[in-house]
Amino acid sequence: MTLAEPVASPSSLFQRHQALLEQAVAAIASRGYWSPFSEMPSPKVYGETAADDGKRAFDALLGQRFELNQPGEMGELAPETSPYGVALGVRYPVCESEALIAAAQAAMPAWTALGAAGRTGVCLEMLHRLNRHSFELAHAVMMTTGQGWMMAFQAGGPHAQDRGLEAVAYAWREQSAVPESAIWEKPQGKNPPLRMQKHFQIVGRGVALVVGCGTFPTWNTYPGLFAALATGNPVIVKPHSNAILPAALTVRILRSVLVEQGLDPNLVTLCVTAQRSATQALATHPAVASVDFTGSNTFGQWLIAHCRQAQVYAELAGINHVVIDSTDAYKAMLNNLAFTLSLYSGQMCTTTQALFVPAGGIATDQGHKSYDEVCADLAAAVSRFLSKPEVACAVLGAVQSDDTYARIQEANAGRWGRVVLASNALSHPEFPQARVQTPALLACDAADEAAYMEERFGPVAFVVRVADTAAAIALSERLTRTHGALTAGLYSTSEAVIDQMTQATWRGKVALSINLTGGVFVNQSAAFSDYHGTGGNPAANASYADSAFVANRFRVVQRRYHIAS
Amino acid sequence: MTLAEPVASPSSLFQRHQALLEQAVAAIASRGYWSPFSEMPSPKVYGETAADDGKRAFDALLGQRFELNQPGEMGELAPETSPYGVALGVRYPVCESEALIAAAQAAMPAWTALGAAGRTGVCLEMLHRLNRHSFELAHAVMMTTGQGWMMAFQAGGPHAQDRGLEAVAYAWREQSAVPESAIWEKPQGKNPPLRMQKHFQIVGRGVALVVGCGTFPTWNTYPGLFAALATGNPVIVKPHSNAILPAALTVRILRSVLVEQGLDPNLVTLCVTAQRSATQALATHPAVASVDFTGSNTFGQWLIAHCRQAQVYAELAGINHVVIDSTDAYKAMLNNLAFTLSLYSGQMCTTTQALFVPAGGIATDQGHKSYDEVCADLAAAVSRFLSKPEVACAVLGAVQSDDTYARIQEANAGRWGRVVLASNALSHPEFPQARVQTPALLACDAADEAAYMEERFGPVAFVVRVADTAAAIALSERLTRTHGALTAGLYSTSEAVIDQMTQATWRGKVALSINLTGGVFVNQSAAFSDYHGTGGNPAANASYADSAFVANRFRVVQRRYHIAS
Repeated sequence: MTLAEPVASPSSLFQRHQALLEQAVAAIASRGYWSPFSEMPSPKVYGETAADDGKRAFDALLGQRFELNQPGEMGELAPETSPYGVALGVRYPVCESEALIAAAQAAMPAWTALGAAGRTGVCLEMLHRLNRHSFELAHAVMMTTGQGWMMAFQAGGPHAQDRGLEAVAYAWREQSAVPESAIWEKPQGKNPPLRMQKHFQIVGRGVALVVGCGTFPTWNTYPGLFAALATGNPVIVKPHSNAILPAALTVRILRSVLVEQGLDPNLVTLCVTAQRSATQALATHPAVASVDFTGSNTFGQWLIAHCRQAQVYAELAGINHVVIDSTDAYKAMLNNLAFTLSLYSGQMCTTTQALFVPAGGIATDQGHKSYDEVCADLAAAVSRFLSKPEVACAVLGAVQSDDTYARIQEANAGRWGRVVLASNALSHPEFPQARVQTPALLACDAADEAAYMEERFGPVAFVVRVADTAAAIALSERLTRTHGALTAGLYSTSEAVIDQMTQATWRGKVALSINLTGGVFVNQSAAFSDYHGTGGNPAANASYADSAFVANRFRVVQRRYHIAS
Repeated sequence: MTLAEPVASPSSLFQRHQALLEQAVAAIASRGYWSPFSEMPSPKVYGETAADDGKRAFDALLGQRFELNQPGEMGELAPETSPYGVALGVRYPVCESEALIAAAQAAMPAWTALGAAGRTGVCLEMLHRLNRHSFELAHAVMMTTGQGWMMAFQAGGPHAQDRGLEAVAYAWREQSAVPESAIWEKPQGKNPPLRMQKHFQIVGRGVALVVGCGTFPTWNTYPGLFAALATGNPVIVKPHSNAILPAALTVRILRSVLVEQGLDPNLVTLCVTAQRSATQALATHPAVASVDFTGSNTFGQWLIAHCRQAQVYAELAGINHVVIDSTDAYKAMLNNLAFTLSLYSGQMCTTTQALFVPAGGIATDQGHKSYDEVCADLAAAVSRFLSKPEVACAVLGAVQSDDTYARIQEANAGRWGRVVLASNALSHPEFPQARVQTPALLACDAADEAAYMEERFGPVAFVVRVADTAAAIALSERLTRTHGALTAGLYSTSEAVIDQMTQATWRGKVALSINLTGGVFVNQSAAFSDYHGTGGNPAANASYADSAFVANRFRVVQRRYHIAS
């Protein structure tokens, strides 16, 4: 807040941001292109000093204690290690779970009493404030996740804010569809009507726990965070132990907005803990009414099985895949796929893991290509795309986890198939300690299900030889139904094949990208237009964002009494 | 269909009923009084011969095989016994679960392809057709559940149809908020924009199982049935083994509409089985994607625990209760409560079970009344209300189950408290075998939690002595949070008390009726206005009806591809 901008009340915040909200509500109704938060880290948009200010603010955090003034502090932790090899050393307060829950519950009644419009106004101000911290957040995302700078800025900043706003828009649409009151007047023939006054109070379900992941600590956290907040729930954010800083900055910004509004900052708190058991105890606490989770199948399924007291919104792992039947733009197809496989070293939940290619090869604008030629040509396209080190490092970023790093070594060793392209280690000009790895491409047969039908998170992809296109589509459907997928792709010049694949994705419930050859990639999901996950296959039980993502986070409690006829 | 009414296509059905749909959508937005299906069994509304026709149609069913022409028939069952002692003897086909599921799955693609408008048109026609069968349905409801005639007609016919329409309206609102397609055009500075065509396909989650209860076989079945159908899912209706006929009639009517539309009638089937294990196997079948259930906590909790593959929408048991603090209309209050306790012998999921009265008594317009006086006066009000046998039999109906009958005997024996009013058996002038019982009223102390803090379904109510009003409100909240409640009531002349109770119901999430002294009763819940259940306490995890009741029954599957700039 500048001095020229006086502190507003929640209702005036609603008015201040009402035009933005109305645009957002229009956007979710039409789902064309719309993005209110600029993805270009430009001084014209963010201010001449924003980049420097953000970098300075980030640097000032390193090696320091991160103050949040939360209740129940009982120690501190500094668990993060940067994939870029930079020393982070930020020390976070560790708070007692019970203290965070009690504080969240204490903050809830005033948040409920604000009403949907008041809460929405505060959430919109929070998003506005997050946007102004985009550079600082981008550095935090980059250094904790290993993303390249541009991705860290875009996905960590404005795109995450877009997804947060999308959730707020859905929450507002659903809540504003509930009337605050009604007069119920039932005719009684010749007698006076029965008349009752009714009031409909929106109340949140209770304390929301939002568990973040190590790769997209804001993009995958903001939808649940803002959906829960806007619908009247206090939120405890539990970040991944290696990507705390982006969440901690977010929580601090949100708490500052709450304080400015005269609201209890403990409506939003950060939970840092070294033990999974502590997270499990928190997630199964009777007061926790919802859990948003992004991460591994193992822990996600544990949450779904054990958090019986809570609504669980989970994005887990899947086997994203592309069916290649034919193309009239072979080179563009290969380049498009090469970019997808390379971006952030395949560490996106939407990255393609398996490419299904008919054993008999495919028809292309460059003539027939055998299965082996497709393998070789895709490998060449990846190598060509990453041939300039500065491009490669910017696109690949760094490998986030030791597990992913180990998987790369296994892939290179040929454990899961013939190595078509080995993953190479690159040295980063700016960060000599960074773990930069190019994608590994393996060839295997459709029958080798143990190889490709398990998530191999990171830069490991399979060119799977299938009998024919029909078998590839059938495999796609079966794989989606049994293992889940967030994205599916198809390359085909045949309308019949496109139609068959389309129908298969309706049954399997996975989003389909068809013939991507230009500047859009199967692993990209744009807020306000692309539904991220369908919530209908094992990769995710919810979608960013739709009505179902918000509608069950609040309940309506009515009261009624007679009034005079 | 009369000959003058030609068979319409689904889209023309949508147009035919569009005005009704628009009214319904307006009604759920305002939630004032609205009821499109007349609750008066009047010849002016339903036709001069409707009553006779309905009775004749019902009589013609007795002792006969009920034909449905479903797949997988492997025998028949006739398990129903009428609480009125009338021989029913209707024999229903028993079908293999796998056959019903396979047939449901086969019927789904065409239903999906119809789109939201086509499906909605068919659902509206189904409701219209059900309404025309209201008399026949009413007899079936009355004779299987023991409801009195007027309740059977209203709750079993038009009120159930209202609830079905309410679900269709929510389903339409949510589905029509999803655009069918969009053009996504992202600016690229000086370059041509990126342009993509996107399509958003609504697909149902999969086979829906709707499990009915023995007391309201249509009212509690239609919301889930129509919510699932409208959102693109095939439905298998599994009625309570003693209330099959209303469900069987419903299914037959729906199937006839489907056949008329050239659709596969196996989109809606009836599952009759003698074994709970068969229902369990069906509910946990991998193809079953949602389960709607009304009934006991035991089976409901089993479903929630075991149907991990499905969304479960459950209305279970709760401890409905009323706090009596003070009143300025003592006699009217007692009469209102007497009606609530008597109606259908308390066999409504909304009937008050516990009345909390301060140990020091209450202030009334007739002076101070001690706890004992309140007990005695309420007992007298019940006795007075039921003093005319014809009124008593019409209001009480008959006792539906042996379990309820046994509970009444236990109550009369003083097992759970001092008997303030014993339940009497009345003889029904028309049905000599009918089990008609007046309410039992027991007095106990708040500390006797084992007595009143467990559902005693049927005509057994407790006047619970609490320390004071504050203790009563605290008890109400605790009871709601731990055991659940569908309804809560309050009598008080104090604004402060009303406010305290209101806040407690926000925390406990239970609907509150305040100072009901006229022609509205705490156990009544009007479609389009009253939310039935909040879905936020243990008595129910869903509400009739709100967005959350429909929004997660379908998913959106998108596809996208480049288009020229």
